[in-house]
Amino acid sequence: MIKLDLTGLNNFVAESEIEAAIAAAQSARARVLELPMHGWVSLPSDITAADIAKLNAAGARIAEQSDALVVLGAGGSSLGARALLDALPGRGDVKEVFYAGDNLSGVHMARLSNALQSREFSVVVTSKSGTTTEPAAALRVMLKLLRARYGEALKEHLFVVAGEHKSALRDYAENLGCELFGIPEEVGGRYSVFTASGLLPAAARGLDIAALLRGASAEAGDGLEAAVAYAAARQKLNAGGFTTEILASFEPDARNLGEWWKQLFGESEGKQQRGIFPATVSFSGDLHSMGQYIQDGRRNLFETIVSFTGLPTDVEIPPNREFDDGFAFLGGWWLNDVNDVARQSVRAAHIDGGVPVAEIIAPGLNEASLGALLYFFEYACAVSACIDGVNPFDQPGVEAYKTIMRAKLK
Amino acid sequence: MIKLDLTGLNNFVAESEIEAAIAAAQSARARVLELPMHGWVSLPSDITAADIAKLNAAGARIAEQSDALVVLGAGGSSLGARALLDALPGRGDVKEVFYAGDNLSGVHMARLSNALQSREFSVVVTSKSGTTTEPAAALRVMLKLLRARYGEALKEHLFVVAGEHKSALRDYAENLGCELFGIPEEVGGRYSVFTASGLLPAAARGLDIAALLRGASAEAGDGLEAAVAYAAARQKLNAGGFTTEILASFEPDARNLGEWWKQLFGESEGKQQRGIFPATVSFSGDLHSMGQYIQDGRRNLFETIVSFTGLPTDVEIPPNREFDDGFAFLGGWWLNDVNDVARQSVRAAHIDGGVPVAEIIAPGLNEASLGALLYFFEYACAVSACIDGVNPFDQPGVEAYKTIMRAKLK
Repeated sequence: MIKLDLTGLNNFVAESEIEAAIAAAQSARARVLELPMHGWVSLPSDITAADIAKLNAAGARIAEQSDALVVLGAGGSSLGARALLDALPGRGDVKEVFYAGDNLSGVHMARLSNALQSREFSVVVTSKSGTTTEPAAALRVMLKLLRARYGEALKEHLFVVAGEHKSALRDYAENLGCELFGIPEEVGGRYSVFTASGLLPAAARGLDIAALLRGASAEAGDGLEAAVAYAAARQKLNAGGFTTEILASFEPDARNLGEWWKQLFGESEGKQQRGIFPATVSFSGDLHSMGQYIQDGRRNLFETIVSFTGLPTDVEIPPNREFDDGFAFLGGWWLNDVNDVARQSVRAAHIDGGVPVAEIIAPGLNEASLGALLYFFEYACAVSACIDGVNPFDQPGVEAYKTIMRAKLK
Repeated sequence: MIKLDLTGLNNFVAESEIEAAIAAAQSARARVLELPMHGWVSLPSDITAADIAKLNAAGARIAEQSDALVVLGAGGSSLGARALLDALPGRGDVKEVFYAGDNLSGVHMARLSNALQSREFSVVVTSKSGTTTEPAAALRVMLKLLRARYGEALKEHLFVVAGEHKSALRDYAENLGCELFGIPEEVGGRYSVFTASGLLPAAARGLDIAALLRGASAEAGDGLEAAVAYAAARQKLNAGGFTTEILASFEPDARNLGEWWKQLFGESEGKQQRGIFPATVSFSGDLHSMGQYIQDGRRNLFETIVSFTGLPTDVEIPPNREFDDGFAFLGGWWLNDVNDVARQSVRAAHIDGGVPVAEIIAPGLNEASLGALLYFFEYACAVSACIDGVNPFDQPGVEAYKTIMRAKLK
């Protein structure tokens, strides 16, 4: 289970106040389940063994026939897959993953089209609504490439993840006879990592999606208290003027977990001129970039460290047999242990500098622990937005530029 | 030259106030040149034709002998190279670039060591001080790998970039007889992209470093007024309660330019409990993540869009011959033009939502324009920090965790 350590807030908020905030958060929990679009709550346990078998079969076919996988989708249709695929090493035959449909750059698309010329590839396209411009533009390019390369076998190389309502994309997939997966209507994009949107790319890379779902299900059972405590604590800090949250990890491969987290929290909470501003750093590297600001800059920051215990691999630091670099004391240390020391040191230094530090501890860096962690954040986010009095499941502001853009394009 | 458009601030600050702020910034310009560590100011024109030839020769040798390049360094010893190598496609034989020395993760190092087993590789290590733990730990692993793989030929595969003072790393490089490049003492890490730290990895990827330096030199001559205006405007916004700056680009490959920018501004300005908090987004993708917050969240944000004219490549959006997806109006558009429309639409929507928007326009996405853009930001950053009354060239807060960490490790 995910553990939460709030002792790094003690210098800033009295423990009794945090406890009172947690007690008060129970009404927000109830509110989550009253709102439309909370279908993600039961998603990990709703998925059947047959669903998993279908996803694994499609993933195995992608791996068998492809050097490269193109994950095509914008926002929540892509960020969950990215978080998983970067954090966990692939075990299958898919050597490379490219992303498309999340930008409108002709420069980037020219590079991608060029890279695909020399590779066998498959495309997983996720679009719940089917009405977003970025994936629509990218899909047109990819369909042309697929048809030119594979002809009638296009249907073997295209995998569609679409909303369960009737749509042109869904009709097309049915008529074509390609693999088709659904996203339940009651699940919004940023809460959709446990649909085929996240699971199919994961299966294609040989990840154990059953373990991922088991981790999420277990967290949904017993882990909710920690998620509620995190939600209550961060809103308590927000009310006290700590209005920017920095999510920090000491694993560089968890960087895209931070991108997923930024969408989840930013889009759920940033409305009605409210919301905690979500930012991320990748330590220890970013201690040499954002570290100065966090230590000494404007004091409206709090920091949430995500750490992982029981890591799967490690490297012992060898002696430097080439020259005396003044770091002989590193001899005999394993890197992950030095990384742990860095984490403890950063935590102490930042608290001392005036930054409240919460810590979220995941048991391992594997499918089960990531499933638990992602679910923990989803639940915490929904509760946190409800505490702040905003709807965690809408995003009215996203339409503003779209409306102007559509008028200009037509 | 880099152009600056401040008309997107007009709804928030009177033009006359911006003009007064720019006039007042002249004293900050003078202050920059009085401070120690402003050696980067003349760097682009200090570098001689012989220096460039030596860098290009070393770069060509790396390309000839390597499938993969390892760029080893922390913070400013890595971020400049990353910004360049990601934004511009490589033209040489180095197919892959890995980064090391910017983290302490054994998981990540195990992956890197494993990847290098099947590749011919060279290592460029940058450490100005030679006293930073992350690169010291990574260098020990890399030296062991290099010695095991190449034996006496290690010296052909190792390239050292070190401070010009006497140091153990410099002595080692001299005794070994490997290529050695210097970083002038008066140039700090985050202002060092125009030293071998940025230039050697760029040369190894076949980039035109002479053009990069020409772009920077030209900007240093005529472009400074725009940089000062940007500095003055952002400090005017800061004083008015817009305390978080979001750097936005519509080119996904410019993402690491943002990471470089965050270090430059965050580390230069974030001190004495002051400073504008630097954050970045990659549009249009992040419109589907951070877009909601920017449009409707807490109103302490301003946005700086970096755009590029005269892009080198583009893709025409083909018709969708597979099915009617409701986007027939995209037919005949080129992606970069749609991207331009998105930029204009975002700008209008965000201003309407209460976010001041500045725009920085670079002429092209190539070596010369990137050289100009990087220099523009360096100069603007130094002036901006001086306007806010802090020293742009120190980073006292970075020592806090290091002191604790060293005590624990020894």
